[in-house]
Amino acid sequence: MTRGSDLPRTRIVRALEAAPGTRLRVQGWVRTVRRGKEVAFFEVNDGSCLANLQVVAGAGEPGFDEARDLSTGTAVDVVGTLVESPAKGQKVELRPESIEIVGRAAPDYPLQKKRHSFEFLRTIAHLRVRTNTFGAVFRVRNALAYGTHRFFQERGFVYVHTPIITSSDTEGAGELFRVTTFDLANVPTKDGAVDDAADFFGRAAYLTVSGQLCAEAMAIGLSDVYTFGPTFRAENSNTSRHASEFWMIEPEMAFCDLAGDCDLAEAYVKFLIGEVFDRCAEDMAFFDKRIAPGIVERLEHVASSSFERMSYADAVAALERSGETFEYPVGFGLALQAEHERWLTEKHVGRPVFVTDWPKEIKAFYMRRNDDGRTVAAMDLLVPGVGELIGGSQREERADVLEAAITEAGLDPEAYAWYVDLRRYGTVPHSGFGLGFERLVMYVTGMTNIRDVIPFPRTPRHCAY
Amino acid sequence: MTRGSDLPRTRIVRALEAAPGTRLRVQGWVRTVRRGKEVAFFEVNDGSCLANLQVVAGAGEPGFDEARDLSTGTAVDVVGTLVESPAKGQKVELRPESIEIVGRAAPDYPLQKKRHSFEFLRTIAHLRVRTNTFGAVFRVRNALAYGTHRFFQERGFVYVHTPIITSSDTEGAGELFRVTTFDLANVPTKDGAVDDAADFFGRAAYLTVSGQLCAEAMAIGLSDVYTFGPTFRAENSNTSRHASEFWMIEPEMAFCDLAGDCDLAEAYVKFLIGEVFDRCAEDMAFFDKRIAPGIVERLEHVASSSFERMSYADAVAALERSGETFEYPVGFGLALQAEHERWLTEKHVGRPVFVTDWPKEIKAFYMRRNDDGRTVAAMDLLVPGVGELIGGSQREERADVLEAAITEAGLDPEAYAWYVDLRRYGTVPHSGFGLGFERLVMYVTGMTNIRDVIPFPRTPRHCAY
Repeated sequence: MTRGSDLPRTRIVRALEAAPGTRLRVQGWVRTVRRGKEVAFFEVNDGSCLANLQVVAGAGEPGFDEARDLSTGTAVDVVGTLVESPAKGQKVELRPESIEIVGRAAPDYPLQKKRHSFEFLRTIAHLRVRTNTFGAVFRVRNALAYGTHRFFQERGFVYVHTPIITSSDTEGAGELFRVTTFDLANVPTKDGAVDDAADFFGRAAYLTVSGQLCAEAMAIGLSDVYTFGPTFRAENSNTSRHASEFWMIEPEMAFCDLAGDCDLAEAYVKFLIGEVFDRCAEDMAFFDKRIAPGIVERLEHVASSSFERMSYADAVAALERSGETFEYPVGFGLALQAEHERWLTEKHVGRPVFVTDWPKEIKAFYMRRNDDGRTVAAMDLLVPGVGELIGGSQREERADVLEAAITEAGLDPEAYAWYVDLRRYGTVPHSGFGLGFERLVMYVTGMTNIRDVIPFPRTPRHCAY
Repeated sequence: MTRGSDLPRTRIVRALEAAPGTRLRVQGWVRTVRRGKEVAFFEVNDGSCLANLQVVAGAGEPGFDEARDLSTGTAVDVVGTLVESPAKGQKVELRPESIEIVGRAAPDYPLQKKRHSFEFLRTIAHLRVRTNTFGAVFRVRNALAYGTHRFFQERGFVYVHTPIITSSDTEGAGELFRVTTFDLANVPTKDGAVDDAADFFGRAAYLTVSGQLCAEAMAIGLSDVYTFGPTFRAENSNTSRHASEFWMIEPEMAFCDLAGDCDLAEAYVKFLIGEVFDRCAEDMAFFDKRIAPGIVERLEHVASSSFERMSYADAVAALERSGETFEYPVGFGLALQAEHERWLTEKHVGRPVFVTDWPKEIKAFYMRRNDDGRTVAAMDLLVPGVGELIGGSQREERADVLEAAITEAGLDPEAYAWYVDLRRYGTVPHSGFGLGFERLVMYVTGMTNIRDVIPFPRTPRHCAY
């Protein structure tokens, strides 16, 4: 029944590739059962791949009685021999010599029918991984996560864990979750205000919105680093694209300018697409057929395109000349809205495009000021189908310019003194970017709600499990 | 100066392996300078390895004036040609054709002297990565992190991200950080108590202490999964082994019993040791020489040993027979203290040992009850030098037994209804373990304070950066 029994377990992804005649044991959960008088069929899935292994027992043969007794959701342990399958879509099926019922599914098992709405499945997030769609989503998510590590490790980057609990606010404008051990019924005060010094960390502490500033410190020493960890936004917005907790990837490179930053981002996106096609071809075909028709072709196009690079000024000029009617205004100094991003990458360029050199007023304080005095060395990567996928910049490496930007942004210079130190001791040009991992998973799978690419999503008023 | 210049950057780890005569460019930070009238030497480090590249310029040769003008901490960009080095301990050195000073270090640069105490370096966590010890620590940490992913991915495990913010408490006994968006100066109340329903998530929310319960849900569908994410303890203890924020690795396997769980843990520890020797041989030699003499031999011994397995009852009996004088009492039903763990693994067995089948009273509610009625299928892995490294168990897969254990532990059955569901629908024997990642880094490097293996550690009253 368990590991260590005589015949070891074969994962179904391997069983389906094995030659007819192979004797093996599979363990998994029954997806469908068809009972006849002369023959009983059932399909087993173990999560190792999208496809099920079909088990077929004729009347009077071993396993026939057990097979007739199965129901959807039941855990089984089957030993048998593979034979060529006459059914289409599968090379082999299993003739059982023994079927053990490991765990039955209670009659109220909610995954009886073949199709359920994603809304319903969100209410049973602890079970939805047993469906085709969510099994595929989490296998692709896994391939993208491991692909991220492979990409950076093969290039000599060091993975660094930046703090989750922090007393600083990278963007200087975040909506932060407070982390506290205060008894909320009895918060200590001093001189009429909350006595933050009495809290666990001796000051007010929050959940991080970005690991970038700490990653910069690590890069000014290790040269090339990346983070891959959770980040948080206490934003009370219920959209299909925002979660309160999500994972981010943030590479940071010493001795690297904005052009090098774009080079890395382009190579990274292309690597990940190749990785998913390599490791999850069956899952991607499923998404192409059932979730987002055309997505495979769209990703192949991106992987084989040279990404365009265009200044924000040129992008705005193109938008102004476009003749399109946009809902939101276009003009130098205004942020690009989703409709503008989509037009640029889908209609104007027809492939991914880096928009660079943005007005300093609409970008973060740490981005490097360009010589024109009004723009910063920032880049957004826009991709067809979703718009912005990556945002990055060259960082301001001049201590005096950075200090002025901190003051201009209304931030407390003392809180950023250590960050300025990085510019006082052996400063170097350096650059990095951030990629929201869930947005990447949505982009690659075609899933349209961020709640459906996170095992147990956190959004306003939702924190179950 | 930056990427995209004519000659690409060569990392120093590669430069030191290149053949004399190779022309290349390195970029990094000056570690030491020796100025003479006839010749100037300086050493450059770029974090890619422990060793520095020595640059040598004779009077009248290119770079001599610049070399004489350098100071420790300065960022430089050097183009030159490798020559055989007459100095011992290095195969090659660099004869510069140009030296660019990219960023000077202000005169108060705190890393002037060769040796600083770890206590002092903790106060400049944003700079300490530029020292030999911390560069080595974070390279080894990286190798262990990536090795973890490689190990599980090569075995078909799916990496899952379990929630950081949670409304449940896995251990049922944790000291939790509250996550809130309440204005602490004005916490809403209802009927005289804190109105948790008015908080961001519509209920009280906390930082996770473990991803295990959610990982179990994913395993009952994907079969083999692992987590690798941050976990938290709001424990007000200032020891060298406890941090408020640390990373954990938690594999979970369906159709796996306690013996299979031990098999996986043993293979994992051995794999990681091999990985670190492969990727970080120079850093490990450094730790062996400077930090923890004998550590390489100790790890080699572990990697080549067969791990012992012994029941808790046998372990207690051995301790009772040992003739040793222990500070803490020994007896069936009592927890093992560090002194007991060390004696068992170091003196009694002389290699790593799994202690299995613990009294149920001192283990968590979710561990599988053994047939004897008084023990559970739990294991602790004890290793020479540190004691407990891994804790795991087979999980209770019987719905009725689990429900009784939840009630017995004084937990709210309703909060764990989804967890019991996993036993109502296709339950299977399953097992997993948890490994504290920082404890692993300490074990492998010989560093004795957890604050020195985390880039920016969080402990009571410490949350800088």
